[in-house]
Amino acid sequence: MPDLQKIVDEIYSKLKPRRGEGKVADYIPQLAHVDPKKFGMAIVTVDGEVHKAGDADIPFSIQSISKVFTLTLALGKHGETTWNRVGREPSGSAFNSIVQLEHEEGKPRNPFINAGAIAVSDLVLAGHTPREAIGEIVRFVRYLADDETIAIDPEVAKSEQATGYRNFALANFMASFGKLDHPVEHVLGVYFHHCALAMTCTQLAHSGLFLAAAGKNPLTGHRVVPSQRARRINALMLTCGHYDGSGDFAYRVGLPGKSGVGGGILAVAPGKASVAVWSPGLNHNGNSLIGSLALEMLADRTGWSVFGQ
Amino acid sequence: MPDLQKIVDEIYSKLKPRRGEGKVADYIPQLAHVDPKKFGMAIVTVDGEVHKAGDADIPFSIQSISKVFTLTLALGKHGETTWNRVGREPSGSAFNSIVQLEHEEGKPRNPFINAGAIAVSDLVLAGHTPREAIGEIVRFVRYLADDETIAIDPEVAKSEQATGYRNFALANFMASFGKLDHPVEHVLGVYFHHCALAMTCTQLAHSGLFLAAAGKNPLTGHRVVPSQRARRINALMLTCGHYDGSGDFAYRVGLPGKSGVGGGILAVAPGKASVAVWSPGLNHNGNSLIGSLALEMLADRTGWSVFGQ
Amino acid sequence: MPDLQKIVDEIYSKLKPRRGEGKVADYIPQLAHVDPKKFGMAIVTVDGEVHKAGDADIPFSIQSISKVFTLTLALGKHGETTWNRVGREPSGSAFNSIVQLEHEEGKPRNPFINAGAIAVSDLVLAGHTPREAIGEIVRFVRYLADDETIAIDPEVAKSEQATGYRNFALANFMASFGKLDHPVEHVLGVYFHHCALAMTCTQLAHSGLFLAAAGKNPLTGHRVVPSQRARRINALMLTCGHYDGSGDFAYRVGLPGKSGVGGGILAVAPGKASVAVWSPGLNHNGNSLIGSLALEMLADRTGWSVFGQ
Amino acid sequence: MPDLQKIVDEIYSKLKPRRGEGKVADYIPQLAHVDPKKFGMAIVTVDGEVHKAGDADIPFSIQSISKVFTLTLALGKHGETTWNRVGREPSGSAFNSIVQLEHEEGKPRNPFINAGAIAVSDLVLAGHTPREAIGEIVRFVRYLADDETIAIDPEVAKSEQATGYRNFALANFMASFGKLDHPVEHVLGVYFHHCALAMTCTQLAHSGLFLAAAGKNPLTGHRVVPSQRARRINALMLTCGHYDGSGDFAYRVGLPGKSGVGGGILAVAPGKASVAVWSPGLNHNGNSLIGSLALEMLADRTGWSVFGQ
Repeated sequence: MPDLQKIVDEIYSKLKPRRGEGKVADYIPQLAHVDPKKFGMAIVTVDGEVHKAGDADIPFSIQSISKVFTLTLALGKHGETTWNRVGREPSGSAFNSIVQLEHEEGKPRNPFINAGAIAVSDLVLAGHTPREAIGEIVRFVRYLADDETIAIDPEVAKSEQATGYRNFALANFMASFGKLDHPVEHVLGVYFHHCALAMTCTQLAHSGLFLAAAGKNPLTGHRVVPSQRARRINALMLTCGHYDGSGDFAYRVGLPGKSGVGGGILAVAPGKASVAVWSPGLNHNGNSLIGSLALEMLADRTGWSVFGQ
Repeated sequence: MPDLQKIVDEIYSKLKPRRGEGKVADYIPQLAHVDPKKFGMAIVTVDGEVHKAGDADIPFSIQSISKVFTLTLALGKHGETTWNRVGREPSGSAFNSIVQLEHEEGKPRNPFINAGAIAVSDLVLAGHTPREAIGEIVRFVRYLADDETIAIDPEVAKSEQATGYRNFALANFMASFGKLDHPVEHVLGVYFHHCALAMTCTQLAHSGLFLAAAGKNPLTGHRVVPSQRARRINALMLTCGHYDGSGDFAYRVGLPGKSGVGGGILAVAPGKASVAVWSPGLNHNGNSLIGSLALEMLADRTGWSVFGQ
Repeated sequence: MPDLQKIVDEIYSKLKPRRGEGKVADYIPQLAHVDPKKFGMAIVTVDGEVHKAGDADIPFSIQSISKVFTLTLALGKHGETTWNRVGREPSGSAFNSIVQLEHEEGKPRNPFINAGAIAVSDLVLAGHTPREAIGEIVRFVRYLADDETIAIDPEVAKSEQATGYRNFALANFMASFGKLDHPVEHVLGVYFHHCALAMTCTQLAHSGLFLAAAGKNPLTGHRVVPSQRARRINALMLTCGHYDGSGDFAYRVGLPGKSGVGGGILAVAPGKASVAVWSPGLNHNGNSLIGSLALEMLADRTGWSVFGQ
Repeated sequence: MPDLQKIVDEIYSKLKPRRGEGKVADYIPQLAHVDPKKFGMAIVTVDGEVHKAGDADIPFSIQSISKVFTLTLALGKHGETTWNRVGREPSGSAFNSIVQLEHEEGKPRNPFINAGAIAVSDLVLAGHTPREAIGEIVRFVRYLADDETIAIDPEVAKSEQATGYRNFALANFMASFGKLDHPVEHVLGVYFHHCALAMTCTQLAHSGLFLAAAGKNPLTGHRVVPSQRARRINALMLTCGHYDGSGDFAYRVGLPGKSGVGGGILAVAPGKASVAVWSPGLNHNGNSLIGSLALEMLADRTGWSVFGQ
């Protein structure tokens, strides 16, 4: 095992001068107000070592990273029938594109684009009220991270609800094809709330540890999913986790990962560790610019790429 | 290391009764005439063990699998500037779609869809004649597989030339955006010929071994590419290697791979082995139906998925 | 002037046996319950002659035909700046397609596809409440037809509101590009209500008379629009009035016209007459099958095509 | 009848100062070399009056205007079965777009976009050699205009052949769907040559006179097509004659017309006259900027709009 703390420190000091690069998401005020110079990183190994740098313990809006957790929940409830409602192919277009839905009759291409995550929210609802489903998601993430302090930022959720025209369009479009089981407002209520989860890098890295350890959190001993399912979620993160920059992330970093427009990225090194980075400035694909670079450097220095030494 | 020969034998006997399933490609007579019941498999480990079953030593038309080799050549000639001409994102559409080219001004999304491989053929030409470029490709594949008997099937090449309207459309379309350096006929001459390479599973598995072994063929000692490039080619195979079924292949098999409409698939288990399968019947995404199943079973039994145990 | 009553009678008896052909729109129960054998026709000439056949005095849901009236109102309020919000090109896709909006940043291609008519509803609102705008539209149509009995069918309006997911998607999508001035619910409230106008063929033919008579209703003496604007609205009806069947309608009938999924069509013979037909069964483009045939026969027999004798 | 010579003179002097506006097509050198200040106009009435202004007797490359003549020929040879190979709906996209072909399996939307005109060239060939078909087209246009001096500019034809990658792409794409009866090279040979016809405004106006006079050239007495077909060709010109600016042209001018990238436009006032304008600078839709304005002024002053006084 390489000296991870040294590596993390080096990456942090190398990238520190570049903090602020990229474009902070501004589609809701709560995201736009964040300090663009924030930069944090946390690694939790399967052996329980924790290595951090920078703003690793400041909570941020995890946004689309939450889609990994809701997909895990939906697969737990519906198993492989989940794939009747959402595909598992890279999208070939922007994260919030509606074009694809028209060609495939309201079935989103994968669970990590907005439309797909809305379909997953519908599956998580499973006959419950939005309040119940949101409660279940929060409890699940706390259980994954073994941290009862994790919570949703209600201001962010409210803001998303007030300005989420594109998501209302996507959900109504799917409903027009009969692809939602619950009312559009309920489904989006769930969606906007899970996107508003606030977590620190340290919490996020803990919450993804089960994906690095064959489905079982080695620190708590909780078996979250069977090993095959953990591999499959990792596969989806690798092929679809960074919108239309997924191929580039696989090429440069070589690890399954999921980004959010809040500037966070959760990455998984199977058998090794779970990693979370946060830096609000985004690149042109909507993924954290500094965060992507940090993970590229980490993969280079550790040899953790899933694609070979 | 698991008992690979036993695993290969089990897979073969399990799938033997299903030979003939799927649809044999019929767009050129030479492919349509192949016996749909053929089924072969070969594994070459990084330690030099070879395990085979079925028709592993009968040559077949490798078709698009050759795109891995021409990409490797183009990267050798042009390095990262290769990506000025072709992207590295999954396509989100069929292997021979032309729609995407219009939206991105003649730049194909990745080197493994037809348009992208045509762009790569243009890069391989690099000022040479088609005959020279084709010769270079054949020599390169022989060098990779350490087998001087590998050759192009001239009948297949001729047939593709005579019926390849879609590829003529793609190449002319790129030319209309000024994206080809050589005449359309030259570029397609190279393209049609490398797609017509005939190889056995055993040869093919050998030729991909450098990708499983950090860029160096451990059997010949030839350093083909630096380790970083090997990882990156693997990443491209995983995200883009199976057309619009790439996400599904990653989900079910979890190995970098590249398929051809001749029914072959080359898969790479980094650090472990190079695997080739062949069975002509294709699934709805144009990938070998039995071949995909064989690789899924292999990944299950060996635990070779790049996404964890 | 040909013997119009004789022509109308002949058309009616020729097509009577074919009543019931086509597919009645069923996306809301109120439309699906209509008797598929209904068939009516009314001609009002610029000299005030009225010729009718069949169910010419039974009210039906005019649906998209109302878009001609709201466009006329919007042009009255906003003049040529109307075209900042909506284009005037044929759509090249289905009436409720959302794809085009993504390519043109939320600006619909013309005022007669759903997205365009929603944009026009937004313009008609012009700061008023939905109730006020709906009242204004009803009064305007009564004024055009000189008939105070014309009204909205509240059941149809309610039904459209309850099932109009696709229109909610379109409106939210435009809102996401900042292309609506009023809340989505208000805009759609206006839209769903004007589509629910119930009119007879006779009323409808009267309401379109101003378009046949250079902008002035010759029976009431009301100057509705300047003559240039009447010509321009006719031009839009001809190029865009029948969704993706507009070219076919121009080819076969040769008159400006606007269809609705309720099975009605309003057609204009400039300088001659205004014509309304109604028959609920639709062809594959969503236009009245028998109604289109009736208009084709009328144009043949009268020589009223705008494209020559 | 208005004083046409006075109107033509007024239009000419009003627009003379604006000559040179717009962008001259430069995709082949022969078009780029034309003097951007050229501007001519010719009207031929159904009574045989001829009114001209400016450069009305200087030949220019009629380019896509020739598609009206080849369509007329194809309809003569194949009648309504012509529409099995090409649609008659406005395209909703640029003149040389290939996207639509993929969605409709190689059937172009209308005969006036490039793909559609290529399909029409295939129909005109009808088993003959390209040389024979080209000869037939030239003889037909001479017959229409009653002018034996009309000829193809061989330099333009050669240039188009050498640089027409987009058209090669379109033709090969259609061939890949089995939609061409003749070899791609033959079809494009015909296409490139008819686009290279050189005509003056006066010749062009004469050649379109049959469309203004119910299918019969009133000056020669030649019955070219039945009156219904003349109306239908006019309908196609109105809905599809100006690429993605057809709606705008109908809105502003209100006459059937067909433009070419050489800067010419042929317009038809049914029952009145045939009009040709020429000015090389194009607007953003690829139609003559000054030519469109001249026709708009002509329609205003004469009241010739087909959409009413």
